[in-house]
Amino acid sequence: MKNYRVFMGLMALLIIGLIAVGCGSNVQQPVAFRADIAPGTLSAEEFGKFYPKQYDTYMKNAEMSNEGSKYGGSEEYDKLTQWPFLKEIFAGYGFAIEYNEDRGHVYTLEDVKKIKRINEKSISACWTCKSANVPGVVAEMGDAYYSTNFHELKDKMTEPITCANCHDPQTMKLVITQPPLRDALTRLGKNPDKLTTQELRTLVCAQCHVEYYFTDDKKIVTFPWDNGLTPEEILEYYEELGFVDWEHPVAKVGEIKAQHPEFETFASGSVHYEAGVSCADCHMPYTMVGGEKISSHWWTSPLKHMNESCMTCHREGEEWLKERVFYTQDKVADMMARVGTVNVEAIQAIAEADAAGANQEVLNEARKLQRKAQFLVDWVGAENSMGFHNPQLTFDTLNKSMDYAYQAIAKAQEARTGTAAPQWNVNIPKLNSEAVRLMQAPAEPAPVA
Amino acid sequence: MKNYRVFMGLMALLIIGLIAVGCGSNVQQPVAFRADIAPGTLSAEEFGKFYPKQYDTYMKNAEMSNEGSKYGGSEEYDKLTQWPFLKEIFAGYGFAIEYNEDRGHVYTLEDVKKIKRINEKSISACWTCKSANVPGVVAEMGDAYYSTNFHELKDKMTEPITCANCHDPQTMKLVITQPPLRDALTRLGKNPDKLTTQELRTLVCAQCHVEYYFTDDKKIVTFPWDNGLTPEEILEYYEELGFVDWEHPVAKVGEIKAQHPEFETFASGSVHYEAGVSCADCHMPYTMVGGEKISSHWWTSPLKHMNESCMTCHREGEEWLKERVFYTQDKVADMMARVGTVNVEAIQAIAEADAAGANQEVLNEARKLQRKAQFLVDWVGAENSMGFHNPQLTFDTLNKSMDYAYQAIAKAQEARTGTAAPQWNVNIPKLNSEAVRLMQAPAEPAPVA
Repeated sequence: MKNYRVFMGLMALLIIGLIAVGCGSNVQQPVAFRADIAPGTLSAEEFGKFYPKQYDTYMKNAEMSNEGSKYGGSEEYDKLTQWPFLKEIFAGYGFAIEYNEDRGHVYTLEDVKKIKRINEKSISACWTCKSANVPGVVAEMGDAYYSTNFHELKDKMTEPITCANCHDPQTMKLVITQPPLRDALTRLGKNPDKLTTQELRTLVCAQCHVEYYFTDDKKIVTFPWDNGLTPEEILEYYEELGFVDWEHPVAKVGEIKAQHPEFETFASGSVHYEAGVSCADCHMPYTMVGGEKISSHWWTSPLKHMNESCMTCHREGEEWLKERVFYTQDKVADMMARVGTVNVEAIQAIAEADAAGANQEVLNEARKLQRKAQFLVDWVGAENSMGFHNPQLTFDTLNKSMDYAYQAIAKAQEARTGTAAPQWNVNIPKLNSEAVRLMQAPAEPAPVA
Repeated sequence: MKNYRVFMGLMALLIIGLIAVGCGSNVQQPVAFRADIAPGTLSAEEFGKFYPKQYDTYMKNAEMSNEGSKYGGSEEYDKLTQWPFLKEIFAGYGFAIEYNEDRGHVYTLEDVKKIKRINEKSISACWTCKSANVPGVVAEMGDAYYSTNFHELKDKMTEPITCANCHDPQTMKLVITQPPLRDALTRLGKNPDKLTTQELRTLVCAQCHVEYYFTDDKKIVTFPWDNGLTPEEILEYYEELGFVDWEHPVAKVGEIKAQHPEFETFASGSVHYEAGVSCADCHMPYTMVGGEKISSHWWTSPLKHMNESCMTCHREGEEWLKERVFYTQDKVADMMARVGTVNVEAIQAIAEADAAGANQEVLNEARKLQRKAQFLVDWVGAENSMGFHNPQLTFDTLNKSMDYAYQAIAKAQEARTGTAAPQWNVNIPKLNSEAVRLMQAPAEPAPVA
């Protein structure tokens, strides 16, 4: 019996030991965040005193490199050289003068001050996504902030995008601080203060990574989401509003400039969004730093840290996964080049027809089509993922842009020559229950003329 | 000590019992396949005597239902009603007379005999993918088989597509029996008798689910793969060959009819192909029948048995996955409708220009463009997956079709009116090391005319 007791004692020790080794680890358990940063603190450095590891990753945003990523990246290169069609479609507007790939969030203030698109007439609306000071200034000045001269508020803008843009300094909870997103959510019947953490892990990014415009009168930064988030729904919104950013001097039509609709593209049915993935899951992956699990605050391409982002769900190898991303992005880039070319040809066709004394009524129809085409290709060019955030929607958007652009060419030629290109109008059944009935009683399609 | 021995004995029994329950199962282990079916056996029923479970699944190919799948399916419905543009682009050719969605493999013989595309002049090449008798007849007759009158060999064709098309009756090993694929692989330097099982699990399907043409002289069924497998590479092959299937009576140009390029679409870089997935993995999933694991021989949409096909890799729910498939397919269907419409307009524009006495030299350029456009949209329409086998390639192919079709319209209008649409030729940098150098020394893009 004594042997038996010794044996059982050893067994018990062994089992406890196995549990300790197998299930435990050296990882520090999550703790409630400290809540003693003074209200109103905006400086990333101040936050960094309490969260030095997160701060270190935030400071990586100062690095400039495209390594790992094929398109985009954080090097400040000239998009107009990379995509010559952009210079033509933005003629007469600031984006044809200078249009650089964005650098990291730590540079927002520095970059907005030096970019040539800002001139003496620029308004403070342009500060909105460049400084953590903005929500406080809007609280102080109200809507008057937006139309105030840009240079007048220069001294108030002391911080770039910092921790304070997304975090309450006292509770460290994620918060929507930017008035335009608060307004847009409210209009859509959503309370910006009653969002889940996973919703916030996308929506704090949607404070800036979105399409927006300035209202006509007060120049308030506004998100055109009332009809929905897809490029076509947003285009429809602008059409209903008759919104114009600038007049194209060659096409002679009021154009819309798309901004950086990452959120809308991603949230319009992309596979990752539908899988419940947030922006932060890929762009701010959980990272081990000195035994502590933190969210990375280095906002960059997930292709630079695939092990922490992609591989938490995808079990395939990094190189293989990267090839798949590039397979999609290469096709998007090729299609964008083709569609961009046709967009330039549409502008040229309108200009040539105009110079040849074309029928202005018909030519105006061409101009309307060109405006639509341009917004859709611009959407894809301005969206920072070379289509990856939602490939299907991106291909669809590019193809529709090409369709409108060629229709614009045909209309311009008609205005010039009096000869219209044929239009084939036929009802194409939708593949749903209605179409099944149609199939059972086939209708004769219209013959070719 | 006696207690201790009893305890240890009970422990041992318990461990053995746990192993037996946990690691064992009632599944019969795979056995080497029986090899006693007479050489030359073609009838599925004969094979079925030895492999009754596989045979039962094969006989499910007689079922006709679209349930579960949104596009395609095994109901014999009229594709010309579903897609009115097909009737126009195939004018003057058999496919404009009757073009039905395929039924299951058990119907191949029955359906080829009744379809209106077969007439008194049809040749035996048309039997090639419809009967298990073909390889034997070719072995007997040589290349003379292909151009022999279709009706002359009717009595030799006793079997539809059966087990014998893919299996050696003695070893049950997968084999490439169809001469056209054997020839194509040999031309590409691949020995059709030295393929791995996983290669064969795709290539036995590629015996028929491919693009092909009949050679000019002997009408040999030939796969146009010498330049590569993508739609553009195959189009290039046909252009080099000057291949023509028929003359379009409205466009007055020799056209190419695409067949059913499932293999080429899938094997040109699709995510599933690159992941090492074979046709059989999704379309012939392993299924438990009475405790035995067999490959299903019911060739249908994987959406009808997602648990056995998709869910072996994808952990998301069936309904969710199906929604993702439809998100892609819906966008492909919409794009195909738009691109098909433009293809019809191209034909109309050529016909109208021709009727108006247009410059035939310029009009012939329009015809060449129309031929390219038509082949590319036809590729997608003929490919049985509504783009799912390779969405990126499908979107790309449709967009290129639209580009060519609109170029054809512009050329036709030019031939008619004498006014050319503008062409913007600019070098667009590729995003690679060369482009980075270009970015460092930006060249001024050509200005809009």
